[in-house]
Amino acid sequence: MKKESVGIVETKYFKIAKDLKLESGKTLSDVTIAYETYGNLNKEKNNAILVCHALSGDAHAAGWHKGDEKPGWWEILIGPGKALDSEKYFIISSNVLGGCKGSTGPSSINPFSSKINKENEETNENKYGLDFPLVTIKDMVNAQKKLIDSFKIKKLLAVIGGSMGGMQVLQWMVSYPKMVKKAIPIATTAHSSPQQIAFNEVGRQAITSDYNWKDGKYYLSEPPENGLAVARMVAHITYLSNESMYEKFGRDLKDKEELSYDFTMDFQVESYLHYQGESFVKRFDANSYLYISKAIDYFDLSSNGSLIEGFKDVKSKVQIIAIESDWLYPPDQSKNILTALNANNVEVSYNELKSSYGHDAFLLEGGQLNYIVSSFLSDTVVKDLMYQSITTITKDTKIEDAAKKMLKEHVTHLPVIGEDHKLIGIVTAWDLSKSIATKCNDLNEIMTKNVKTCTSNEPIEKIASKMKKYDISCLPVIDENSKLKGIITTDQISHLLTK
Amino acid sequence: MKKESVGIVETKYFKIAKDLKLESGKTLSDVTIAYETYGNLNKEKNNAILVCHALSGDAHAAGWHKGDEKPGWWEILIGPGKALDSEKYFIISSNVLGGCKGSTGPSSINPFSSKINKENEETNENKYGLDFPLVTIKDMVNAQKKLIDSFKIKKLLAVIGGSMGGMQVLQWMVSYPKMVKKAIPIATTAHSSPQQIAFNEVGRQAITSDYNWKDGKYYLSEPPENGLAVARMVAHITYLSNESMYEKFGRDLKDKEELSYDFTMDFQVESYLHYQGESFVKRFDANSYLYISKAIDYFDLSSNGSLIEGFKDVKSKVQIIAIESDWLYPPDQSKNILTALNANNVEVSYNELKSSYGHDAFLLEGGQLNYIVSSFLSDTVVKDLMYQSITTITKDTKIEDAAKKMLKEHVTHLPVIGEDHKLIGIVTAWDLSKSIATKCNDLNEIMTKNVKTCTSNEPIEKIASKMKKYDISCLPVIDENSKLKGIITTDQISHLLTK
Repeated sequence: MKKESVGIVETKYFKIAKDLKLESGKTLSDVTIAYETYGNLNKEKNNAILVCHALSGDAHAAGWHKGDEKPGWWEILIGPGKALDSEKYFIISSNVLGGCKGSTGPSSINPFSSKINKENEETNENKYGLDFPLVTIKDMVNAQKKLIDSFKIKKLLAVIGGSMGGMQVLQWMVSYPKMVKKAIPIATTAHSSPQQIAFNEVGRQAITSDYNWKDGKYYLSEPPENGLAVARMVAHITYLSNESMYEKFGRDLKDKEELSYDFTMDFQVESYLHYQGESFVKRFDANSYLYISKAIDYFDLSSNGSLIEGFKDVKSKVQIIAIESDWLYPPDQSKNILTALNANNVEVSYNELKSSYGHDAFLLEGGQLNYIVSSFLSDTVVKDLMYQSITTITKDTKIEDAAKKMLKEHVTHLPVIGEDHKLIGIVTAWDLSKSIATKCNDLNEIMTKNVKTCTSNEPIEKIASKMKKYDISCLPVIDENSKLKGIITTDQISHLLTK
Repeated sequence: MKKESVGIVETKYFKIAKDLKLESGKTLSDVTIAYETYGNLNKEKNNAILVCHALSGDAHAAGWHKGDEKPGWWEILIGPGKALDSEKYFIISSNVLGGCKGSTGPSSINPFSSKINKENEETNENKYGLDFPLVTIKDMVNAQKKLIDSFKIKKLLAVIGGSMGGMQVLQWMVSYPKMVKKAIPIATTAHSSPQQIAFNEVGRQAITSDYNWKDGKYYLSEPPENGLAVARMVAHITYLSNESMYEKFGRDLKDKEELSYDFTMDFQVESYLHYQGESFVKRFDANSYLYISKAIDYFDLSSNGSLIEGFKDVKSKVQIIAIESDWLYPPDQSKNILTALNANNVEVSYNELKSSYGHDAFLLEGGQLNYIVSSFLSDTVVKDLMYQSITTITKDTKIEDAAKKMLKEHVTHLPVIGEDHKLIGIVTAWDLSKSIATKCNDLNEIMTKNVKTCTSNEPIEKIASKMKKYDISCLPVIDENSKLKGIITTDQISHLLTK
């Protein structure tokens, strides 16, 4: 897989024509949604993928803004040849409602501000602050829907996102079931847990306790940077696993040989956290942090206390991805989603990233993510990958000849075929060595007869799980008459990764 | 076990005569240590147990201060008939150096303050603040040592504590190996992990970012309550498990039927956290929080990077207790202590509290704690509990007669004895039913011959683990000549709990 970039990109702005009705009952006027797109929308308008960002993300998911040193936040997944392939798909990424990176939020101008001066509308004095209404994940998705409508896209090929982005994916599945062909919620939950709410509340408390916060009316003065930095620091701890912190920092000291015995920073991990806090306050609005974290807390897709009922209208094909070392959004929360979707007969699969990074793994584990996401999006089936020209033997083949054939053709599996090219068994290198150990000379005795097989139209993910389940590295492909059509190996599947 | 209290108690104050030399190289003068004692020191002065408290604890571990509604923080474990039995032991509990509950700390008067006015020494103006030197866990233990010396106690029967209290226990084992007969470190670590340091640093950052903190010179004005409350809130989340938060709060709302769609408190868990923060600031000094959390960060008993080397002089018998749902001080950290002590041939055992409470379980799981601690302290051996009058059979006993004997004596295990009362096997109710199934009539064929046994002087904890390991409920007790002396059952051991 080539790892190329979409290159230089620009953020664009979409104005929602009508007022946006919110879940709280309030309405928002003059709503702007900042967004970026990568790739081209095809004529059929059926290749669009919506990318949803997490708490501190923005519309800039891939490529470079002119002059920037760093690419967008999901560069590992988006671009030519990557899972979200900009040469195949039209990728849309937008900043959430309530955010501070171009979409309407608490730091935007309140069009109904009493202080509006038509000659100088955009003054800090006229910013919403806490007059901005509370928005929910559902409201964010409704705003995204207007953006999608503006492209005249009737159905999204996929919606994908991690953490709060995953919540938006789930909300899309529920709010607009017919508009979402495939959905990929990553490292997320269908309802925030009390622990998640508690951490968010600590962050909010740190912000609102800051002397500079002034009930959110800080746009004319110093922003509450200390409070926001503390909020980010505590959140950042929850994004890492205990293990990855050990690997990354251990108890290493920062620029000193010995403990200082004072309150300067002693440990690397402290310095890292401070850096995270300080760099965050330069790019994020404290009020947006309050609003977005509250939207996360409110998120709950249960209906009458039942997630099964909440998912009853879901039509999408779903790929759930969890992270084994994520303790903030632990795999159990993803498994709850899996169970509830299964109960609704939704076509759903579940994968866990093998990673020690913790929650942050959805931004870091490029290899595994690209593999899972591209397999799920590509609809690759067995016939796309299988070997059709294969070496076979018959049940009368002598063991010695079978061994010679294996050596000559450099294969480890020899399908045994009978009349009409029907598969009757398989002989592996392992079987042959067994024959030596037992001094058996009859192929019929050593070959495996009850062979696991697959058909050429089965999705590749299904075959991969089957091979994993039975711990086999090769499956013969047969047709409806049991005729051998080809063979597929774990090697071929793993090559998908390096395509 | 009776659950009685030590009743009304008072905090006392011990003044260290000489200057206290600190690990940093600095010295502290006029050090006071606040302490409480429960029970009486015996003539031999060998029944003293030192209790060490956690970050926010104090000397008041048990009983009631006059007029108080709540008892000391470890009332579940200390008192007549409890594991730390005040009728048997002399229990000492002291406030740590650097604390704010009577021991010398940053909120104490600095005897060298330039503003000291002899007529009015105790003014807020003369408080240490950040002029207080940094103290370590080792310094805290050195100060406790002076207190213990003042009682002319040469050797402590035990040192016990959880969390930071457990660190002090470990430090005692290392600093004064000959003074600690038994040690019980609970839910602790031999070195703070980067995650623990990170959470502490967030707390410190919240305090020092508070407008009212003023570089620690707030004793003449408003204290930094908001910052300290945020520090406590984030710490409190780490004391609970995800599971227990679900059980305790779920997504329940606080005094409302519906979400408020504003920034008032919506969820129970938020209200609980706020309560924790608000009540903490009334009883704790923000500067003490800075100093004590720093002492925790600095704690590391490794020597040249090796914990095995760090523990090389340990002489105590050790009972490690971890908590299965503790993610702040996870069981792995306790197992590291176990491994390093084992490598030094220290007599050590390890138990895990079965609890969903998380780190806080060491303050809550009274039943399990009392059982483990009292068994460890009591030195109960097999002969204290075993049945001596037992029903036996010989190898010539008919199966039918064996069955009748079982029924008559109401036992499930019949030791089979040979000449000189030597144990040659055992027959259980299960063996008898087997004989029916197999139509076997020969006792010799159905009895278990390779019987697990124990001797009368073995410690009861060891026997309990043996029975657990082999999944057996009864052990014959034999002497050095294999003569049967009695029998011990899991029933008897479990009765210890209800004594």
